[in-house]
Amino acid sequence: MPQLLRVQNFNVSADGIGAGERQGPDRPFGDVDRPERLFAWAGATEHWPNRTEPGGSRGLDDYFTRDFARNIGAEIMGRNKFGPQRGPWADHEWRGWWGEEPPFHTPVFVMTHHGRPSFTLSDTTFHFVGGEPAEVLARAREAAQGRDVRLGGGVSTIRQFLDADLVDTMHVAVSPVELGSGLRLWESPDELLDRFHLEVVPSTSGVVHHLFWRR
Amino acid sequence: MPQLLRVQNFNVSADGIGAGERQGPDRPFGDVDRPERLFAWAGATEHWPNRTEPGGSRGLDDYFTRDFARNIGAEIMGRNKFGPQRGPWADHEWRGWWGEEPPFHTPVFVMTHHGRPSFTLSDTTFHFVGGEPAEVLARAREAAQGRDVRLGGGVSTIRQFLDADLVDTMHVAVSPVELGSGLRLWESPDELLDRFHLEVVPSTSGVVHHLFWRR
Repeated sequence: MPQLLRVQNFNVSADGIGAGERQGPDRPFGDVDRPERLFAWAGATEHWPNRTEPGGSRGLDDYFTRDFARNIGAEIMGRNKFGPQRGPWADHEWRGWWGEEPPFHTPVFVMTHHGRPSFTLSDTTFHFVGGEPAEVLARAREAAQGRDVRLGGGVSTIRQFLDADLVDTMHVAVSPVELGSGLRLWESPDELLDRFHLEVVPSTSGVVHHLFWRR
Repeated sequence: MPQLLRVQNFNVSADGIGAGERQGPDRPFGDVDRPERLFAWAGATEHWPNRTEPGGSRGLDDYFTRDFARNIGAEIMGRNKFGPQRGPWADHEWRGWWGEEPPFHTPVFVMTHHGRPSFTLSDTTFHFVGGEPAEVLARAREAAQGRDVRLGGGVSTIRQFLDADLVDTMHVAVSPVELGSGLRLWESPDELLDRFHLEVVPSTSGVVHHLFWRR
């Protein structure tokens, strides 16, 4: 089986925006009004990785949350998904937004021009790597030991890997919310039709799942 | 995590029919005209368990075929899913429809009043068990070692477990084909709404996925 690079459960608004500008330590999604509107559909499902109480729906949306970790052996994320700091690391105290039990459970490769020692939280190890997308992907594939690699975002990281034509499949959940301004994944999903099949699947939760795979 | 009893990728016609009468050694679906119309949607996907060549779609339908084996530790099936013989076993030469590499990869419990020794093909072991649905489920749960149990069908076996209120989740793919007569899962899926949530998800392939989970 080939090792795929997969975007899974990436959330954008109806106008294609994944996050706002001006990210801060208490604002992972920047200055977006109620960003939880983008991912509430996932939190309502049985298999939401952060779920701590029983319950949750087992309908269509749950097929997407339970596919999040299936056959994934590593994640790649941009530095801004990891945290709000920019430039050289002032200190190493920031260890991500996710507390002591990050929801990744695999090696995670954080793309940054600024070196930093790897560290481990529970069963997730964060590595800090420079280089072009293809080089980072090669390292992540090796760490994934035959399984697929998840491309975790944010928007500009996904754009970089799309521009390098390295993405194999992509699941983007489009919420029925207009944000107007922020970091934009696309003007329209149709921009990707030259390279990808696209199926558009509306859910009763209001979110519209967009499923892309290579032509 | 509780061990669920799950129906996965069970196929019926628009009028609720899963197979015809008069099953025979070369007619696993009985006298249904072109029964492949019921499951062609699955064969077109990347993760169809019987796929031998690369290719196949990775859209919505593929989420269902790749969920087929996820966290499944055993299968229960009726004797008529296993083969066309009825009554006491005349011989033990029949070993299922699936050749030397059955697509189950777990213990399989075949419900029958007529004993027969267990046997193994590749990584699938078939056991022949009598008793009420609840007893058979208890044995399958033990064999599944913490994972879920798949209820494989056919129609009358699923009806038995529904009548005993033992089914936790059910995915039924309804094809846009009217068969008129045969073994009927339901007159209408609405019959199950007293006990189950239901989401109805049309696919571009023409099949309509019906997702049930307990209220």
